Amino acid sequence: MRDRRQHKCLERTMSDTLLPDDIFVEDLGEQELLQRLQQFCPAELVGDDAAVLTPRPGYALVVTTDMLVDGVHFATGAATLGKWTTSPRDVGWRGAAANLSDLAAMGAQPLGITVSLGLPPQTPVRWIDELYEGMVACLNVHQAPILGGDLCRSPILTLSITALGEVLPDQQILRSTAQVGDAIVATGRHGASRAGLELLLNPEWGKELSLQAQNILKQAHQRPTPRLDIPPLLEQIDSTVRVAGMDSSDGLADAVLQICRASGVGAVLWQSRLPIPDALRHTQSLTEQELIDWVLYGGEDFELILCLPLTIAEMLVLKLGPQAAIIGQIVADPAVILADDSGQPLGAPLSLEQGFQHFS
Amino acid sequence: MRDRRQHKCLERTMSDTLLPDDIFVEDLGEQELLQRLQQFCPAELVGDDAAVLTPRPGYALVVTTDMLVDGVHFATGAATLGKWTTSPRDVGWRGAAANLSDLAAMGAQPLGITVSLGLPPQTPVRWIDELYEGMVACLNVHQAPILGGDLCRSPILTLSITALGEVLPDQQILRSTAQVGDAIVATGRHGASRAGLELLLNPEWGKELSLQAQNILKQAHQRPTPRLDIPPLLEQIDSTVRVAGMDSSDGLADAVLQICRASGVGAVLWQSRLPIPDALRHTQSLTEQELIDWVLYGGEDFELILCLPLTIAEMLVLKLGPQAAIIGQIVADPAVILADDSGQPLGAPLSLEQGFQHFS
Repeated sequence: MRDRRQHKCLERTMSDTLLPDDIFVEDLGEQELLQRLQQFCPAELVGDDAAVLTPRPGYALVVTTDMLVDGVHFATGAATLGKWTTSPRDVGWRGAAANLSDLAAMGAQPLGITVSLGLPPQTPVRWIDELYEGMVACLNVHQAPILGGDLCRSPILTLSITALGEVLPDQQILRSTAQVGDAIVATGRHGASRAGLELLLNPEWGKELSLQAQNILKQAHQRPTPRLDIPPLLEQIDSTVRVAGMDSSDGLADAVLQICRASGVGAVLWQSRLPIPDALRHTQSLTEQELIDWVLYGGEDFELILCLPLTIAEMLVLKLGPQAAIIGQIVADPAVILADDSGQPLGAPLSLEQGFQHFS
Repeated sequence: MRDRRQHKCLERTMSDTLLPDDIFVEDLGEQELLQRLQQFCPAELVGDDAAVLTPRPGYALVVTTDMLVDGVHFATGAATLGKWTTSPRDVGWRGAAANLSDLAAMGAQPLGITVSLGLPPQTPVRWIDELYEGMVACLNVHQAPILGGDLCRSPILTLSITALGEVLPDQQILRSTAQVGDAIVATGRHGASRAGLELLLNPEWGKELSLQAQNILKQAHQRPTPRLDIPPLLEQIDSTVRVAGMDSSDGLADAVLQICRASGVGAVLWQSRLPIPDALRHTQSLTEQELIDWVLYGGEDFELILCLPLTIAEMLVLKLGPQAAIIGQIVADPAVILADDSGQPLGAPLSLEQGFQHFS
């Protein structure tokens, strides 16, 4: 049992023993694979029925979980031939980042994650090694260890991550505490991940973008950064300020709608303030409406949408520079509308139906 | 944020609105299904990006996770026709019980679980309702809430549970602390779950057993009891005693072998002391060797195998009555052998290869 600061993930341990693609899970057996993966975990945390760790005194525990499925959230493609459509390192990074983003959205800092894997017997062991390398690369930025997990056979490659974090009770960020008059802050830019996906899937798209712009957008999709930097910044500015918020994993509009629903309020978003990625500002590959749709509904940017008093919001934006913006304000009327600079609505109120429906 | 004792799972909320079998996940959509399942969770814990809870001061946090896959760990069979081979309530109970058993094996008490579900769009919603009813039925025995989770689409019904618990640091049960001379205690009986499975799968088997005996064995398989009663008992007897141990989810022999490997010791198990279920003592459906194999390698009994000083072991067995036994002792020679009452080995040392290999 250790303080979390003493843990160190063992990055790239596995790359020392690069495997050919034709060594499969079934060739190793469960015990050997477990021992292989335990090298990615701090030795003092694994090897028992459960991992033990200690949040700092006075901190509350935060827990969140996500499941990722081959063919739904990523694509191994012809994985058995060693040619996978999505890089396993990216799958690992994104899986870890999505969970750390949920912690950031609660105002928390990470203690670690658990990883459960459902594996077809024909999964190349190298795919799993690289998955873990991707997770650890993301986790190491935040000194968060892999705390253990489970392996089992499955017809479909499935990854389930649970992240644990800690937060001081009075610094929790909840969805339900937005108040009329709050400024709405979006960190980062939105729609970049959606554009990155388009670049990866459709080689004909975005050809007029510079290579640098293309890389920034692809990176936004493949290596999103959880905004764990935001809670300490808020604490610096005002450690007692009430902040409502959530992350924008399901899109900017979804986040605003969820916060408004949980808080019993509405919101006005100013179209001219939408956080459009620089790379997309002058593209001919999108109509203006398509661009706005990607910013609002693209999803997977893993930024934070925060509602807080205007003066605090302005200080936060000042600290973050161009990578944050006040995009609207909370109002009493329980609709979320997009408006022009004079406050006139542009079209019908936003709704969740325009977003992604996982079972449709 | 609440103390865990204030949480109350909402048992059978869903049975108030019994569904026909032809309402499928795809008919509801993610939001509606989420709202339906949130009724099984304490309202103060769900609805945000993550759940927040507080272990008691001085306690360490314990975390464990398991993945269960349709066709591997349970069988929905013709689930889309409403005729499933494994009852979803049993799947839920066993999934929760397996995770709580890992907490008991660490000497911990539960704080709650998270549940991630990968769902084919054609999954009947009633199957999911009953899965949650089974989980909650098991959790309510131990006042442990469902803390939240994740839903996603998947070609294969997949369930991932992470359990959180708390333990006083000096009352942790580890695999690595067994010492030469320790008595080995098995709680409960072993092989009962394996026999229950045989009764369920093979209607020709065990016909000479009384109906009561058959029910006890089936119950052992379908509704195993995590031994969360053991850590408080040990604390009563001697709150400072060193206890090594783990649960017997992968079999009695596996547990002894894992403890010995982690502790760098060996063990002698006395064949005459093996914890055979009463119902199987005089059955004609098994040879003596088959019976011993089931007791040693059957698995899924979710009992505890504990190594501790003989005097403490005797007090524990006295408290537990016939539902516990001293079955052997820890020795310096790093093999695990089965012996007769005079200590003479019966056959070759036990090995993990005789147990279940998940990827074979």
